[in-house]
Amino acid sequence: MRKLSFLFAAAAIFAPISLTHAAGDTATSYPAPSEIVAAAPAGDWTTIDASDLLVMDLAPDNKGKPRRVVIQLMPAPFSQGWIGNIRKLAAAHFWDGTSVNRVQDNYVVQWGDASEKKALPPGLVTVGEEGYLTKSGDLERLVKAAIEHDTIGTARPDHLAIVHDPYSDFATSWRGWSVGSNMSYVWPVHCYGMVGVGRNLSPDTGTGAELYTVIGHAPRHLDRNIALVGRVIEGMENLSSLPRGTGDLGFYKTAEERTPILSVRMMNEMPNDKPLPAYEYLNTESKTFAKYADARANRRDPFFIKPAGGADICNIPVPVRRKR
Amino acid sequence: MRKLSFLFAAAAIFAPISLTHAAGDTATSYPAPSEIVAAAPAGDWTTIDASDLLVMDLAPDNKGKPRRVVIQLMPAPFSQGWIGNIRKLAAAHFWDGTSVNRVQDNYVVQWGDASEKKALPPGLVTVGEEGYLTKSGDLERLVKAAIEHDTIGTARPDHLAIVHDPYSDFATSWRGWSVGSNMSYVWPVHCYGMVGVGRNLSPDTGTGAELYTVIGHAPRHLDRNIALVGRVIEGMENLSSLPRGTGDLGFYKTAEERTPILSVRMMNEMPNDKPLPAYEYLNTESKTFAKYADARANRRDPFFIKPAGGADICNIPVPVRRKR
Repeated sequence: MRKLSFLFAAAAIFAPISLTHAAGDTATSYPAPSEIVAAAPAGDWTTIDASDLLVMDLAPDNKGKPRRVVIQLMPAPFSQGWIGNIRKLAAAHFWDGTSVNRVQDNYVVQWGDASEKKALPPGLVTVGEEGYLTKSGDLERLVKAAIEHDTIGTARPDHLAIVHDPYSDFATSWRGWSVGSNMSYVWPVHCYGMVGVGRNLSPDTGTGAELYTVIGHAPRHLDRNIALVGRVIEGMENLSSLPRGTGDLGFYKTAEERTPILSVRMMNEMPNDKPLPAYEYLNTESKTFAKYADARANRRDPFFIKPAGGADICNIPVPVRRKR
Repeated sequence: MRKLSFLFAAAAIFAPISLTHAAGDTATSYPAPSEIVAAAPAGDWTTIDASDLLVMDLAPDNKGKPRRVVIQLMPAPFSQGWIGNIRKLAAAHFWDGTSVNRVQDNYVVQWGDASEKKALPPGLVTVGEEGYLTKSGDLERLVKAAIEHDTIGTARPDHLAIVHDPYSDFATSWRGWSVGSNMSYVWPVHCYGMVGVGRNLSPDTGTGAELYTVIGHAPRHLDRNIALVGRVIEGMENLSSLPRGTGDLGFYKTAEERTPILSVRMMNEMPNDKPLPAYEYLNTESKTFAKYADARANRRDPFFIKPAGGADICNIPVPVRRKR
């Protein structure tokens, strides 16, 4: 809430930081965040369209076990230039035969064409740096309403759970994603499992052919400096447990150390001879999400003796699961 | 800075969040944090005593490569009850023949006696929950001086870099460690690579026989709920890249999946027939550290186009290296 101080009355500033328990809640035992999520009504979940799912198959591990990674690409209004490119790259089978080339501990796993010579498919767009930001749209209205009603922190009336954020004016969960914001704009944030677009020095913003995912503490200093395009929703362990790179920045020194990528496809373009799973996420505007965020910030389930009274945005991951 | 609002004048509240560049600095090119650390004078480094180093040797990997993990235990005044126990456990060779039993993605790796039947050595103490906190001592004086001189944020005159923290009143780097604080007390924080003590339900606080380390985004909700006793300073990849557990909470379902621990020793009790490395950390009260913290919060090295203007405490890890 760094700069909100200059925007609003001081009284509103400190409340958001502690997601206090909703007034009138008389429960005496407290469910864990996972229990709150499990109890969510069906209507609080949104199915992820198969056309937003990128499926990457790595070579099987040394015991012959298949290694599939499923990535949910960000829907509109986020990062659309790069995501259009990624759809084209998948359709052209660009990543087939490429590899995971970099695994830097507590930072990122990165994959793509190690030779940097493979031809890109036609029609990729160049996105400007303004693409790192998204107009906040209804979020601005929701936050203003929450301030007006002095309900920030109780996550009502619009069920927004706004959290304290050293990297932006405030952070929240919006349209299914964790975002930082300066009120006019929002941007996705570099939490564990988020997928981003490798680039060269500015003004380059990358095409989307070179991708990475976060495998350590959130490197939030990358926010607004590099495009985020999605998140790993299944098979994260197939990337995070890879051997760490032997060279500078976690790149492998030899080609043999790289993990081959067999194929990358959009799920809706995969053969449907075998049934494919569907996924859903918990609506960030639901009452359940507000309760879940509160429980993440104030752990009161039996193991805990001291609720923190706050949480950072990356400790309130949006729940995603296979659809039952 | 959650509750500082109630302690100090409003004017002092917002400055700390952005670690602004020191006034009068006219440099036009900005070194990366790693370059600042590399340029630190020798006097800014403190050698870690071999009697504070816990050395764990795992069974070699499937290519026969040795896997050593070096942990720096927290010196006084932190966590001394548990650390005394850990010294006794190492001296008794308690962990030899035990194993890594749990690897939960984006959370922890945990090791110890999976049978839970191995006899503990005599003389272990039971530590109360008050042991999670440490009297802040001179930190309180340093913070008050920084507030009085209105120098919070510029990390002067005492070179403290105080950061915005959703989990405590403020977080800072003190006596070589990252801590949260409520002014009277400090406590170590659950950043990547920190080592803690497994426990059962409160009032149990654990003996130190069951240890874990953080391998994902900082689970800061565990702060003040569980004892932290040190940090992994070398060989972290030998834990973080282990296969994820197959059962609930990342525990391995079968004994075969566990990684055997060959031995755990205090470094000063190891045979010295082979030369052992020495380590040093960057003094958190040094001018170099203040510069480093500022650079972590405001990346201006060539890759970056937008400095964040802030950082969370776990993104300002205390630099530790092999002594040259």
